[in-house]
Amino acid sequence: MAETVKLLGTKGSPYSHRAEVALRLKEVNFEFLHEDLAHKSDMLLRYNPIHKKIPVLVHEEKSIVESLIVVEYVHEAFNGYAILPSDPYERAMARFWASYIDEKVIPAFWMSCWTDGEMQKGFTGQAKEALTILESQLKGKKFFGGDSIGFVDLAAGMVAFWFGILQEVAGISLLNEEDYPVLCRWADDYCCVEAVKESLLDRKLLVAHFASKKEKIFATKAPVYD
Amino acid sequence: MAETVKLLGTKGSPYSHRAEVALRLKEVNFEFLHEDLAHKSDMLLRYNPIHKKIPVLVHEEKSIVESLIVVEYVHEAFNGYAILPSDPYERAMARFWASYIDEKVIPAFWMSCWTDGEMQKGFTGQAKEALTILESQLKGKKFFGGDSIGFVDLAAGMVAFWFGILQEVAGISLLNEEDYPVLCRWADDYCCVEAVKESLLDRKLLVAHFASKKEKIFATKAPVYD
Repeated sequence: MAETVKLLGTKGSPYSHRAEVALRLKEVNFEFLHEDLAHKSDMLLRYNPIHKKIPVLVHEEKSIVESLIVVEYVHEAFNGYAILPSDPYERAMARFWASYIDEKVIPAFWMSCWTDGEMQKGFTGQAKEALTILESQLKGKKFFGGDSIGFVDLAAGMVAFWFGILQEVAGISLLNEEDYPVLCRWADDYCCVEAVKESLLDRKLLVAHFASKKEKIFATKAPVYD
Repeated sequence: MAETVKLLGTKGSPYSHRAEVALRLKEVNFEFLHEDLAHKSDMLLRYNPIHKKIPVLVHEEKSIVESLIVVEYVHEAFNGYAILPSDPYERAMARFWASYIDEKVIPAFWMSCWTDGEMQKGFTGQAKEALTILESQLKGKKFFGGDSIGFVDLAAGMVAFWFGILQEVAGISLLNEEDYPVLCRWADDYCCVEAVKESLLDRKLLVAHFASKKEKIFATKAPVYD
C-alpha cells in the first residue's frame, strides 16, 4: 500500500516551498492541501497546535512542522535524492548556512522592505552585509549544495524568488546584479530546476498578492504567509 | 594518533554547556579553552568569524559553531552514546522541541527576569505558557530523551540549572515546584547526570557572577554570555 503523505501549505509561502521542493526532489507522491491562512483549517490546528503555522507535513498520520525540520525529515525518511550531504562536517555546514539565512538574511531584508528613514537605513546595512557573506559563500559553486540543489538552496528559496518580488512591491533594489552577480545568477539557475519550477506560483500573481497587502504589511511588518 | 578536539567556551554559558555535555556523553577527549568574552581570543575570531560567539568546536582544525549544530555534529561524528534518536520522526520531534526551547522558552523567561511593569507581565505570561507546554511534553518520562538524557535535555540545560539562578538574582519565582513539579524533578535529575555534573560551574559562583552584572543586564537585556 502506498504511504500517505500530505503537505499543508500555501503556494505563496517560501517556507511551504522548502517542504514542497524537498518532496518533489525525493519524488514522493503527496497531496498538497492549500491552507487559507485567514481561516486556518481544523486540520492545521490539530496537526500543529503549538505554532499553528504552515508548512505541516503529515506522514502516516504523524505531523512534522517547521520548514527546515520538515526538509531534514524528508531527507531522512525517504530514499532517493540526497538533500543533505553524507559527511557530518558538510552536514553541519549546511545547517549553519540554513540557519544563517533564517536569522540574518531574511529578517534584515524583510525589514528593509517595510520600514523607512533611519530604521530602513539600519536594516539595509544589515541586509547588505548578510547578502555579501552569502554571495562569498556561493562563489565558485553552481548551487550552495554543489552541482545540484540541496538543503541551503531550499532554505534560500525566498532569496531566489521572493526577494525580487518583495523589493519590486516595496520599491527598493537591494538584491541586484551589480552588487550580487553570483547570487543573481544562482537565483536564475535555482528557479529553473524542475522540482522548483513546479512548486512556484506565477510571479505576476505573487506581485499582485503582495501589492494588495502592502499597506497592511508596512503597518504590521508581519509576513503575510505567517 | 588521537584526534584533536578543542572546545572554545565559557563554563558560565548554557550554550557552551550543551556542547561540553555532548562531548562528555560521547567520552571524547577534548581540550576546553576558556574564552574571556570581554576580550575574545584571536582563535575564537578566526574559527567563528561570522557570529564571533561561543561555543566553537574545533575538530581536526575544522570549526563547527552554534550550540545545537555542534551537538548534532558530535552525535554524528563520534561513536558511542546516542544523543539523538535513530528514528527519523523521533529525531524531527527532538529538533522541534530543542527549537521550541530556543525560540519560546528561553527568550520569554530571560525577558521576564530583566523587565518590570506591564512589559514584565507580558513576558511572564509567555514564559508560563511555554513552560506549561514543556512540562506537559515531559510528563511520564524521566528525561526528554526517555530513560537517559538526549538532544532536548541538553537544549534545556539552561532551564535545569540557569533558570533557578537567574530568577534568584532577578528576585522572581517563575519556575517553581508548585506550578511545574515535573520540570523541577527533571531539573534535579538532569543536574545529577555525571556528564552534566562535570560540566557545571559552582552554583554560588554563578549567582555572584550574574548578581555582579545585574544592573548591566537589566539595562541592556543582553545575555552576559553572548
